[in-house]
Amino acid sequence: MKNIYVIGIGTGNPEHMTIQAINAMNAADHVFIPTKGAQKEELADVRREICARYLNKADSKIIEFAVPRRETKERSYGQSVDEWHETIAATYRQLVGDLPENGTAAFLVWGDPSLYDSTLRILERVRDKVEFEITVIPGITSIQALAASHRIPVNLVGKPVEITTGRRLAEEGLKTESTVVMLDGIQAFTTVDDPDTEIFWGAYLGTEDEIVRAGRLGDVADDIVRARAEARERHGWIMDIYLLRKGCDVKN
Amino acid sequence: MKNIYVIGIGTGNPEHMTIQAINAMNAADHVFIPTKGAQKEELADVRREICARYLNKADSKIIEFAVPRRETKERSYGQSVDEWHETIAATYRQLVGDLPENGTAAFLVWGDPSLYDSTLRILERVRDKVEFEITVIPGITSIQALAASHRIPVNLVGKPVEITTGRRLAEEGLKTESTVVMLDGIQAFTTVDDPDTEIFWGAYLGTEDEIVRAGRLGDVADDIVRARAEARERHGWIMDIYLLRKGCDVKN
Repeated sequence: MKNIYVIGIGTGNPEHMTIQAINAMNAADHVFIPTKGAQKEELADVRREICARYLNKADSKIIEFAVPRRETKERSYGQSVDEWHETIAATYRQLVGDLPENGTAAFLVWGDPSLYDSTLRILERVRDKVEFEITVIPGITSIQALAASHRIPVNLVGKPVEITTGRRLAEEGLKTESTVVMLDGIQAFTTVDDPDTEIFWGAYLGTEDEIVRAGRLGDVADDIVRARAEARERHGWIMDIYLLRKGCDVKN
Repeated sequence: MKNIYVIGIGTGNPEHMTIQAINAMNAADHVFIPTKGAQKEELADVRREICARYLNKADSKIIEFAVPRRETKERSYGQSVDEWHETIAATYRQLVGDLPENGTAAFLVWGDPSLYDSTLRILERVRDKVEFEITVIPGITSIQALAASHRIPVNLVGKPVEITTGRRLAEEGLKTESTVVMLDGIQAFTTVDDPDTEIFWGAYLGTEDEIVRAGRLGDVADDIVRARAEARERHGWIMDIYLLRKGCDVKN
């Protein structure tokens, strides 16, 4: 049976790699690296750096594959994601199908495969044509990287945490004390109407280009919008994340 | 200035250690290991194993310190946690106070320091008497370990995730499609009245004793209650976590 390792590689710092991830990468004969076009070349570079630093198997094959952009025009969000996954699945079918019998390969996944990543979902689609087993190796997510850079816990004592998207925050507002917002292309924190909410923001976390900001939303929101726009312009892309926190730990 | 590394060590598999965590541990002169009494000796053993495996500095001092149990009698939850933190803070004050000037030390934190862990909070209390800097190194949490063992994403496409406690789940019920429950000593999943909710459960994740169960809550809840009670009896302690999921990815 073919075996596919789906390996979380952390958020851009090659030292986010776990020993388990390094071992799994070295257990695979093939390493698949997605490229997303010139703008996100830096993301592929991190994966190449990880291979260069930790891959110690002389005969590993590193195979790069292009990931298409998601088409959004005249489609609902669900349709758009579904089409996009099906297009990527065609590539996966070929990559996995071309593996020799009992071949092993590794997908290097940004962050962790469990959170707002579709590698596992797309691999499930591929099972219609190719048989294989999956081993998942957990990785550091941008949530942990954000909290580490700000040296804060994400939750208040005994309180819940919501992880959501920019789109949902804009639609639904804050629903709990601690809200982590990912995939926010619209700076949805500017729609939160409580200026006393605290924000802990970070971009390019774990990399040399890391930027962080924290403070009362009323005080720092404009600065974050500016810093984000400027950094996005300079890099050609941005990955950012933030925690919104209302209230503090109380003794009751 | 003294420097304290707060290092996430993952959930029991020594291979959850990141390269960054190993480097930070080796940059410290002192490594602090909490012990929680005989019942949780296995947890201290994992930290000792991590030191034995990765600490390559001949003059590192490993210092074990006892962590008291939290007293709950005749106290609200907030009071109980507050008192407990203050007692641990007294120990931290001594540990950090005893470090030489410019000394460095590492606390090895189960999982990640940002999630339902109080090391950072307690260190903040210690600043009243001792000056020091903090560096946080992110680690694999049991959420990622759970998702990896079940080979599933935690979120549905574009949907939020709630991370909460057993106590809150029992009080408030399910509030969203994907709910991760931690710190559940009361098997709060048995209070969820929708038998079609899916549960993905795991205990001792990442260790050799790992147990996982998954299925419709109506089908597997009793089995999980039994497996949990039996394992807790055998080990003398248990750490478990689960994801409750309602619905599935739809194309809309």
